[in-house]
Amino acid sequence: MPEPIATQIFELGDFQLTSGITLPQAKLSYKTYGTLNAAKDNAIVFPHFLGGAPAALEIFIEEGRPLDPSKYLIVLPGLFGAGVSSSPSNTAPPFDRGAFPQTTIADDVIAQHRLVTEVFGIEQLHLVLGWSVGALQTYEWAVRFPGMVKRAASIAGAPKPSPWTTLWLQTAIEEPLTADPAWNNGFYNDPRDLQAGLRRQGHIMALTLPPLGFYREGEEVWRSIGFSSRNDFIARFWEAFMLPQDPNDLVTQSRKTRAADPSAGGDLDAALQQIKAKMFVIAFNGDMMFPPEECQRDAQRIPNAQYRQVTSKGGHLTTFALTPPDKQAMDEILQQVLTG
Amino acid sequence: MPEPIATQIFELGDFQLTSGITLPQAKLSYKTYGTLNAAKDNAIVFPHFLGGAPAALEIFIEEGRPLDPSKYLIVLPGLFGAGVSSSPSNTAPPFDRGAFPQTTIADDVIAQHRLVTEVFGIEQLHLVLGWSVGALQTYEWAVRFPGMVKRAASIAGAPKPSPWTTLWLQTAIEEPLTADPAWNNGFYNDPRDLQAGLRRQGHIMALTLPPLGFYREGEEVWRSIGFSSRNDFIARFWEAFMLPQDPNDLVTQSRKTRAADPSAGGDLDAALQQIKAKMFVIAFNGDMMFPPEECQRDAQRIPNAQYRQVTSKGGHLTTFALTPPDKQAMDEILQQVLTG
Repeated sequence: MPEPIATQIFELGDFQLTSGITLPQAKLSYKTYGTLNAAKDNAIVFPHFLGGAPAALEIFIEEGRPLDPSKYLIVLPGLFGAGVSSSPSNTAPPFDRGAFPQTTIADDVIAQHRLVTEVFGIEQLHLVLGWSVGALQTYEWAVRFPGMVKRAASIAGAPKPSPWTTLWLQTAIEEPLTADPAWNNGFYNDPRDLQAGLRRQGHIMALTLPPLGFYREGEEVWRSIGFSSRNDFIARFWEAFMLPQDPNDLVTQSRKTRAADPSAGGDLDAALQQIKAKMFVIAFNGDMMFPPEECQRDAQRIPNAQYRQVTSKGGHLTTFALTPPDKQAMDEILQQVLTG
Repeated sequence: MPEPIATQIFELGDFQLTSGITLPQAKLSYKTYGTLNAAKDNAIVFPHFLGGAPAALEIFIEEGRPLDPSKYLIVLPGLFGAGVSSSPSNTAPPFDRGAFPQTTIADDVIAQHRLVTEVFGIEQLHLVLGWSVGALQTYEWAVRFPGMVKRAASIAGAPKPSPWTTLWLQTAIEEPLTADPAWNNGFYNDPRDLQAGLRRQGHIMALTLPPLGFYREGEEVWRSIGFSSRNDFIARFWEAFMLPQDPNDLVTQSRKTRAADPSAGGDLDAALQQIKAKMFVIAFNGDMMFPPEECQRDAQRIPNAQYRQVTSKGGHLTTFALTPPDKQAMDEILQQVLTG
C-alpha cells in the first residue's frame, strides 16, 4: 500500500481573494495518498470540515476499501483559516490574527483548483466529496468547475447553510470565543487564554450535534464509542476536539461557512443547474444540521442527482465512523458513489 | 368574570430548605383567578416554568375556556429564585446574590402546599398542571401529596430532566452568565452589566428550543407568529425574554431544575407508583427538550396515566400558544384533562 505523504504546502504566491484583498505569499496545505495514473484520471479531492484535519478523513482511506490508495490519487486539500494553510494564526501583519481578511469557500476552491491543475496537471477529477463544510466545498467545486468534476458527493451538507445552521455557527462557534474576556478582537497573545471559550464551544456542540436520543437513559450511545459517561464524552470528545484549535482560525472558518453560496449572491437554482457531475446527495437520519428532508430537496434541484439516506445513531457525527456499523454504512455509500 | 388579583406574597416565615439551610423571612408569591367554592374542591394549581411569570400562563385563563375562572379558583404560585418569591435578587445578606442557598423543586412544592392549605384551607386539588419546569413541580406535587392531587397534567415535561436537558441547562442557561466578565461569582452590582450573557442565552435558546424546520426556508414559522425575519424573532422574542431577568435568579432556577427528582435520589419508579392522581402526560411533537417517546415512557411508569401528543409547529414552545391552532390544540388538551 502506498504510504501517505506528509502534509505539504502549495505556495500560491500573492493570492487575490474574492473580497479584493490580496493575501501575500498565500499557502494551501495538502496531503496525498496513492499515485496519479498515466491518464491522470484517477484523482479524488476530499476537502475537510470545520475544525477538521486530515486525520479525520484518513480513516476512510485504506487498501481494499472504497477510497483505495492503490487505485486512486486521493488529495486532502486544506482551506484558508484551518491553521496550516494561510490562517489568522500563521499570517504576518497586516493580516495577522484578528485582522486576517474575510475568505470564502470560493477562495478555498479556487486555490484547491490551482493545486490540482498546477501541481498535478489534472484536467478531470474522478470524484470530489466532503462532509459538512467539506460538502459546501464540494458544491462549490461542482458549480464552479462543472466540466472538471466527474462525480461529486455531498455528505451531510448543503450548497449553502440553512438559517438554523448560520445561527448555529454564530452561537456555537463564534460567540463563545468573541465573548471570552481574553478575546480582545482576536489580538490575544496565547490561544490557551481562551480555553474556557473553547470548552463552551464544545458544550454547545455536544448539545446540538448528536441526534435526539443520543444521551437518553437506556440508549446512551456514547457507551458504544468508548466513553464512560456523558461528561466523559463531553470532555474527551468535544473539549479535546476544540482545545488545540486557534480561536481566530475557528472564527474565520465559521464566517466563511455562514457566507457560503455557490451562486455568489445570485440565483442558486440556476447555479445548481450548472452541475454536470454525477452527484450524490447523502444525508444521515437524525442530523439536525443538514436534515434529510432538506438534503432530499437539494438533490431535486440538481440535474440527475441521486439522494441517499444513511441510517445511524450518530446523526451529524456519522462521518466520524465511530462505530463499526457507521464505518460499514459509510463504506457502502462511498462504494455506491464511486461505482455509480 | 372575576378579576385577577394582583400578585400577592405569602410569608413563609423562617423556612427550612431541604438542604438544611433556613431561609429567614421566606416569601412565596402567588396570583389567583376566580374564587374557591364552599366545598373547597374547585382549586387548580398551575406553577410556572423557568424564567416564566404569571403573564405567560394567564393566556389560558378565560371564561368559557377550560381554565375558566368562573368555575375554578386558579392559583399561579411562584417558586424560589423566580424573582418575586425569595430569590438571590431580593434576599438580604448572608443569602444575597451569589450566596443564595441551593433550593429544590421539593422546596417550592412544600412552600406551595403551605400556601394552599394555610391560606385557602384546601384539602384536595381539582388539578395541578404545568409546562416544562412547571411540569417538574407537577410531578413533585403528585408524588409528595398523592392524596391531595385529584388530577395532574405534565405538559412537555418529565419527572426529572433527561441527560440532554441537564446539559441544556448548564450550556444554555448557566454558562453564558457564569462566563460573562461581569459575573463575579454572582456579586455583580447591576444585572444589566450581564446583558451580553443574557443575549447569548437567548441565542442558544433560539437554536435549541424551536423544533426542526422552524427556521427552514419556505417554512419560516416565525412569520406566523408576527416576526419579520429570523433575527427579528431572535431579538424581539428571545433577547426580550431574557434581558429583564436577573442572572443569579436564572442560575438558581437552572440548578434546581437540574437536580429535580421526586424520589430525592431514591427509586424513581417506586416514587411514580405513589401517584394517585388521574394523570395526563402530554408531549408536543418536535419537542427536543421532552421528546414524545420519552414522555410516553414516563406515562407507562405511572398508574393509570394517559399519554397525549399535541401536533404543532412550535415544539417545546407550543405552550406559548403563539398561533391560533396552538391555542386551540392547548385548549382541547386542557379540556380533556379537566373532564377526563
